[in-house]
Amino acid sequence: MAKINTNYRKLQAGYLFPEIARRTAKFQAENPEADIIRLGIGDTTLPLTESVTSGMKAFIDKLSDKNTYSGYGAEQGSQELREALANHYQKYGVDIETSEIFVSDGAKTDSSNIQSIFADDSVIAVQDPVYPVYVDSAVIGGLAGDYADDSYDRLVYMECNEDNGFFPELPKEKVDIIYLCSPNNPTGAVATREQLKTFVDYAAANKAVIIFDAAYAAFIKDSSLPRSIYEIEGAKTCAIEINSFSKWAGFTGVRLGWTIVPKALITENSEAGELNQVWNRRQSTMFNGASNIAQAGGVAVLSGQGQAESQELIDYYMNNAAVIKQGLVEAGYRVYGGDNAPYVWLRLPDGKTSWDFFDELLQKANIVGTPGSGFGNGGEGYFRLSAFGDAERTKEAIERIKNRLKV
Amino acid sequence: MAKINTNYRKLQAGYLFPEIARRTAKFQAENPEADIIRLGIGDTTLPLTESVTSGMKAFIDKLSDKNTYSGYGAEQGSQELREALANHYQKYGVDIETSEIFVSDGAKTDSSNIQSIFADDSVIAVQDPVYPVYVDSAVIGGLAGDYADDSYDRLVYMECNEDNGFFPELPKEKVDIIYLCSPNNPTGAVATREQLKTFVDYAAANKAVIIFDAAYAAFIKDSSLPRSIYEIEGAKTCAIEINSFSKWAGFTGVRLGWTIVPKALITENSEAGELNQVWNRRQSTMFNGASNIAQAGGVAVLSGQGQAESQELIDYYMNNAAVIKQGLVEAGYRVYGGDNAPYVWLRLPDGKTSWDFFDELLQKANIVGTPGSGFGNGGEGYFRLSAFGDAERTKEAIERIKNRLKV
Repeated sequence: MAKINTNYRKLQAGYLFPEIARRTAKFQAENPEADIIRLGIGDTTLPLTESVTSGMKAFIDKLSDKNTYSGYGAEQGSQELREALANHYQKYGVDIETSEIFVSDGAKTDSSNIQSIFADDSVIAVQDPVYPVYVDSAVIGGLAGDYADDSYDRLVYMECNEDNGFFPELPKEKVDIIYLCSPNNPTGAVATREQLKTFVDYAAANKAVIIFDAAYAAFIKDSSLPRSIYEIEGAKTCAIEINSFSKWAGFTGVRLGWTIVPKALITENSEAGELNQVWNRRQSTMFNGASNIAQAGGVAVLSGQGQAESQELIDYYMNNAAVIKQGLVEAGYRVYGGDNAPYVWLRLPDGKTSWDFFDELLQKANIVGTPGSGFGNGGEGYFRLSAFGDAERTKEAIERIKNRLKV
Repeated sequence: MAKINTNYRKLQAGYLFPEIARRTAKFQAENPEADIIRLGIGDTTLPLTESVTSGMKAFIDKLSDKNTYSGYGAEQGSQELREALANHYQKYGVDIETSEIFVSDGAKTDSSNIQSIFADDSVIAVQDPVYPVYVDSAVIGGLAGDYADDSYDRLVYMECNEDNGFFPELPKEKVDIIYLCSPNNPTGAVATREQLKTFVDYAAANKAVIIFDAAYAAFIKDSSLPRSIYEIEGAKTCAIEINSFSKWAGFTGVRLGWTIVPKALITENSEAGELNQVWNRRQSTMFNGASNIAQAGGVAVLSGQGQAESQELIDYYMNNAAVIKQGLVEAGYRVYGGDNAPYVWLRLPDGKTSWDFFDELLQKANIVGTPGSGFGNGGEGYFRLSAFGDAERTKEAIERIKNRLKV
């Protein structure tokens, strides 16, 4: 008699974005005339660039000719794309071998699937607030324990708040796996070299493994800030890095990402090389490679022309971030992020909950944002606005907030 | 201190196809003049059809225009594609709701990930021989137990051989999850309605769940054979169906598949609807949808013109299957499959192992096939030839076998 995995019953409420979509759809149905502006989910709005569409179409032409058609690709990604990614890291002064790079359909899949290569008694530490996928996939995999008093009893929550500049202290408890996201979703904070170094040193000393989610690295403007954890000495022995083409190249729907598992990485029960081989085996067995058309697009993104075009997308979104941040400051809010990240993190007036503000913002200004509490307890009293909208609509949204929701 | 999931160390040898690739590359390096014909991996060789390439290019045009650009799609797949799939099932007289259909990047991912929605003490039954992914993902997930005496001690192997027409008896042991693949990879056998009915009745009576892999359903020519398990009465209460665009539409590299989790499905600890919701939650949390370009291609495949074009691909490959089967019979082999499946399953002369024949075939005829033992013990003494090659090259390969490896 089959039984379901009852860990699913331990998941709290719906996944954040479906819940936002549900409330928004309900509001729109009840207020069909409302002109809603969406600054909620971090979803790209600018079209794919010329290099990318040409690259993908040229690849489709290859697939439409028997002489150039190709079927299954390598589960790890095409050699061409992996080489382009290795070259990409050279810009940061980081040497990565192509056999350490695993192309995938995105950072969401990798950041959840990566847990399965570790022992099932691993203790996982997450920043709080946190991108919900890390937590929910730990719940599903039985690594989070039971939910009580607003938290899962086997997870270690590393608080990120105004006092510590939204970068956590080292965990006091014994932990095995540490998720760090920088530039951070949702707070927009970016870890400095010194901050990352404390975690790398801790992980190396304790044979813990850092899962470094760098999906927003391309939005860092300040060149003193690290865009890869491998810019930090010693990180290859203790860190896996996950990244994505989604946000800086408009691939949210096209789906393409990558994960780096260095050969130097060690754990308590494995020597250098084995974790790289285990992830390779996981991907070879349970995945069949990212779409070859998306991969052709990724190669185009990493070309000279593609990089210049992507930079225009990044500049456009980061200009939105500046508009949001400036406007919210003028409206009287305390505001974080937005300088080197496409998210602005807003401190709500005392006593206002995140979902209260979500509903208020939707009703008074017809704007959809993301409640901070959707990212965990540490996000309560905060609110995330995304810079991925249309520039004019973003300005309009900020004007509405200034006029209708001034503190 | 992090530890790796040591289940990975229980995996036997490399995944089959990388091992074939390794031996083939070694042979080619040592014999650079050899004209190798590949009838090993079931990889498509005909180009994408006109409908598909036009559909995908038109979608890329949408993505290149700000007014029609779209980012994240539904994790479950686009409504348009799900509706087209629901209509597709109507041809078999099967009613499926769109909310029961989950679009994915392929059958390989789904057939392995699906295990995670069941309890971790589930007993899994597999056909023997078997598509290795079901077994290897069970090993990784800790559901297979330890390997000893050529088998995993927690799996139940259902023997498929010449005597039972390569369709298994009902398991005698208590089992919870039953993988059935029809048309079968590797044997090419297709379950009849009566055969499937015995399993559906068993599963319904025992609240077991059948994972029905129908990735080759489009190759069934005999209209009396079921192309979906839901053609069998009662199957919606006890079966999940997985399918793919890979083989019949040339999407092996493009990546697109789907899984049906009926709302009527029940388990020992869940009522109707919950398993559907659990898979929905799994996909929403740990997956971000198939590439939207691949999905546009899938919609095109399911259009009237697309169906006609795909039928040409199917006919081409099935003609290869007939050529292989006929030629091998003439060469003196006992041969199975190939009538309603793109695989021909060859009984080797007594005493010859599958890998022996692999090496012999490669050396004497420069042909790459797939050793039956790569699919488990039940495959030892057998050999799989794929019909997905070029027609002329397939004919050439069969001539070589007839001339150089006659029994």
